[in-house]
Amino acid sequence: MTSTDEKWLEKKISRRSMLKITGASAAGAAVLASGMGGVAKAFGFDILEDDATAQNKVKFYGKHQSGITTDTTTHVYFASLNVLVGSQSELQELFKTWTPLAVRLMNGEQLEEASPGVFTPPDDTGEAAGLDASNLTLTFGVGPSLFANKKFGLSAKRPSELNELPHFPKDQIADQFSGGDICIQACADDPQVAFHAVRNLVRAASGKVTLKWTQTGFTSTPKEKDKKATPRNLFAFKDGTVNPSPKSDIDMNEVVWVQPNESQSWMASGTYLVVRKIQMHLETWDRTSLKAQEDTFGRHRDSGAPIGKKNEFDEVDLDSKDATGNPHISADSHMALARKVKDRILRRGFSYASGLIDETGAYDAGLLFISFQKNPQQFINIQNALGRADKLNEYITHRGSGVFACFPGVQKGSYIGEKLFSAF
Amino acid sequence: MTSTDEKWLEKKISRRSMLKITGASAAGAAVLASGMGGVAKAFGFDILEDDATAQNKVKFYGKHQSGITTDTTTHVYFASLNVLVGSQSELQELFKTWTPLAVRLMNGEQLEEASPGVFTPPDDTGEAAGLDASNLTLTFGVGPSLFANKKFGLSAKRPSELNELPHFPKDQIADQFSGGDICIQACADDPQVAFHAVRNLVRAASGKVTLKWTQTGFTSTPKEKDKKATPRNLFAFKDGTVNPSPKSDIDMNEVVWVQPNESQSWMASGTYLVVRKIQMHLETWDRTSLKAQEDTFGRHRDSGAPIGKKNEFDEVDLDSKDATGNPHISADSHMALARKVKDRILRRGFSYASGLIDETGAYDAGLLFISFQKNPQQFINIQNALGRADKLNEYITHRGSGVFACFPGVQKGSYIGEKLFSAF
Repeated sequence: MTSTDEKWLEKKISRRSMLKITGASAAGAAVLASGMGGVAKAFGFDILEDDATAQNKVKFYGKHQSGITTDTTTHVYFASLNVLVGSQSELQELFKTWTPLAVRLMNGEQLEEASPGVFTPPDDTGEAAGLDASNLTLTFGVGPSLFANKKFGLSAKRPSELNELPHFPKDQIADQFSGGDICIQACADDPQVAFHAVRNLVRAASGKVTLKWTQTGFTSTPKEKDKKATPRNLFAFKDGTVNPSPKSDIDMNEVVWVQPNESQSWMASGTYLVVRKIQMHLETWDRTSLKAQEDTFGRHRDSGAPIGKKNEFDEVDLDSKDATGNPHISADSHMALARKVKDRILRRGFSYASGLIDETGAYDAGLLFISFQKNPQQFINIQNALGRADKLNEYITHRGSGVFACFPGVQKGSYIGEKLFSAF
Repeated sequence: MTSTDEKWLEKKISRRSMLKITGASAAGAAVLASGMGGVAKAFGFDILEDDATAQNKVKFYGKHQSGITTDTTTHVYFASLNVLVGSQSELQELFKTWTPLAVRLMNGEQLEEASPGVFTPPDDTGEAAGLDASNLTLTFGVGPSLFANKKFGLSAKRPSELNELPHFPKDQIADQFSGGDICIQACADDPQVAFHAVRNLVRAASGKVTLKWTQTGFTSTPKEKDKKATPRNLFAFKDGTVNPSPKSDIDMNEVVWVQPNESQSWMASGTYLVVRKIQMHLETWDRTSLKAQEDTFGRHRDSGAPIGKKNEFDEVDLDSKDATGNPHISADSHMALARKVKDRILRRGFSYASGLIDETGAYDAGLLFISFQKNPQQFINIQNALGRADKLNEYITHRGSGVFACFPGVQKGSYIGEKLFSAF
């Protein structure tokens, strides 16, 4: 065994003892360690394995990144980073560093070395010790500013569809919640696990990246007859009723996954993430009549049905009229306007309620809107259709914004974003 | 039946149909409705019942308020309110209004009327529809400023131990996270349920109270051999190891519950809540060696054992020395200093990680420290013992502060805080 192999083996032993300490099954580590004479290496970093026995674990490796069509988790910690390094190779190095860490984090492993020196900072910040993988997903993307930065020499690799989002009517976008060279979307069923993941990735890149903005979010999924129901946003309306099914390859290939030749070649099987921090003016909403609320969305609040229909998934008929001959669904309702365009997106929305907005004492609460689409234009078309007319505008303000090209998934032996750097 | 009874019955029917919609068992509502010819009334408000069949439900009525010795939940939404009304009777009215709402919220019920008019705002903001009670607890308290405000005529009822906390060394308390006339601590295993509760209580008191500050928090409890372990804070140290047991009446009567004649008579079976918003400088901490981290707390990070010992609950021996004759536990460690005083408190700490602190890009993260004690002096003594010497001072800054007298529990037929108003 080489000394590198020994070091790797120590790591495995470390994990095993950690598992013992934390009371999780040690079997996982044994399976992992068996049949592997030493750790494979590629691109100068360890190739680690998805732990098939870890509890509540989402796979890291695959055709697509996790956190996009994966089942929605209860929490998100979304982070936007700026890059401080000065060259493409250092940028590449960053993603290589992150790859084995992401595998381990998604395995629910500690990042600890075998015999950590007590005179150095611990390898793992440690607050997730004893917690399981909690369905952690990590989704990495790169923003337009990364391609615009000449020091990285990536301008020829910028997909023509990757541009800062245009200004939409009523936008009040603050720089402190916008943009960024890189995004990391950490979703988990435990807020401490999601935060721990971002904290440790950022820490491992200390001096190479800086946090630009972050936002936590949560979503609560009611059960209906042991079936998961559509979650409600803070306006109490069901959010995601018309989402395409993440389980349908046909839908996902049509809506979400970049197909070969649809964008830059490195983006095949990737997707674009749009994020919007949308403040919801709860105080105003709560003074609004149920009718006006329902007219705003074009749906009934409790059932989620289109106005005039009974059930959430009943077909929307924009021409249906009530007894007095008026249309059930206002032409300037959120739903009617959104349906004017054929574009579809995959939404993964989270609510946030962080505190108060200092000046006003209003809730700092709203929607961390995240959508995935094979082309940001899908989102732009929908947002433009809403335009100034959208009845919802009275109750919301867009405060933050970002668009990121999310790499395809990572194959074992490769690293996050490899195709961006290799496909010249 | 009187028309009031009819109205109440309508409410029950409403709840039943809501339960049907949301798929929860309708049995709960049936049990509730049976055997009650009409709703009892006291003090001019409906006396509602704890729903014995609701899922994941904590009892509202009892000797003590909930959320103090109740099992810790994963989330908290802590709200501090200022009172806008101008007289004691209006203040009293506020707590009367809140009482049946608190019962219903803790039952996981909707606050909806039977046939809500569509031309008025809905009674319930609705975002928790379909979610169960989620072990929601609501803990109400009143701050020193309420007694200082002459318009309420309560100065003679102020417990002499209820005063704004003194300035402690290194404090950087901001007004925007401090004080308040009333606190509501909403704990739940679902962040949406906790937020919903505060939002609806504040809304029901619209124009009568205003939010002063709020803070969310979370805590994640690892399992050790199917037993709940001590949760870790964001410095990865176990938080709450020396907590007295909430299951022990002896401990709670000694540490937490005000005994007759120990304070103002209206406070018997109540307690005092201290809240501190403590920023943790994660970036500095993460650059600190494991040894320095452990010396700071006086404990080993992974096991939680006192330095020099093996297990979390091993007895602390401040005199034990290592092989070179140096004390295992530094005299200026957090633990050694805290142990200089005999005072004990019941801690219910939550972590927060809300975003970034704008100016610096540092994590807006830390500890929402909440403790309960029969006299705020217990907390003050401990905090004074930590003083300037505490090694932990380097890594934390206290940003917010509050102290509140939490009423005793509510008996059926009574209302929150009744004793404060009646015991003249």
